[in-house]
Amino acid sequence: MTPDPITVKPSEDVVFAFEKLMKHKISALPVEDQGKLLGIVTATDLGHNLILDNYRLGTRVEEVMVKDVATISPNETLKDAIEKMSEYGEDEGIINQLVVLEDDKIVGIISDGDIIKVLKEL
Amino acid sequence: MTPDPITVKPSEDVVFAFEKLMKHKISALPVEDQGKLLGIVTATDLGHNLILDNYRLGTRVEEVMVKDVATISPNETLKDAIEKMSEYGEDEGIINQLVVLEDDKIVGIISDGDIIKVLKEL
Repeated sequence: MTPDPITVKPSEDVVFAFEKLMKHKISALPVEDQGKLLGIVTATDLGHNLILDNYRLGTRVEEVMVKDVATISPNETLKDAIEKMSEYGEDEGIINQLVVLEDDKIVGIISDGDIIKVLKEL
Repeated sequence: MTPDPITVKPSEDVVFAFEKLMKHKISALPVEDQGKLLGIVTATDLGHNLILDNYRLGTRVEEVMVKDVATISPNETLKDAIEKMSEYGEDEGIINQLVVLEDDKIVGIISDGDIIKVLKEL
């Protein structure tokens, strides 16, 4: 996993969040306030809706974030992570990242790419 | 894999390519001309450089595409795919998609997410 992931505040503008994702070459931003995980926004969703002009000027992160965040704890297994990514995905898809929570604190984020990297070493 | 992936022409504007990626919620576009694979552009790279204003007005896909495309053939194994994703990645990273070529023709694209989906079923 990536420890101490970059996050965004719920009150930020979606354009700001999208720029942050692009700048740091990351695919998702956990939304947090005072250390509490409130949701997640992804580059795929924000980019899609921005391009199609689905947001109005000033749309905030909290209005569009996914609130049912897929999370995992640091002591769960690789198999758990793979299952959760499939379970939370829509239709035939998977979700591409899980927020790692320890005692309700965001300690990391794990992506499908992180899993492929580990599998390579097995 | 996703069969018959969406592609982009080398002469297209990078902004057009980025919009195409966002519109279709995909992470990479093989660059092809007359059926020949010439390169690949990713949402991560284009988005990063567009946000940081690294392109000039009218920059074309062929100027910025990655020419050394990681490819795989339809009869290779899941293990081969995982190894290639790691092999082609920079530093500690992996690349997130492989173009599937059969007799030099683009027949599909396989992503790290596709692999996670299959692993779930094993």
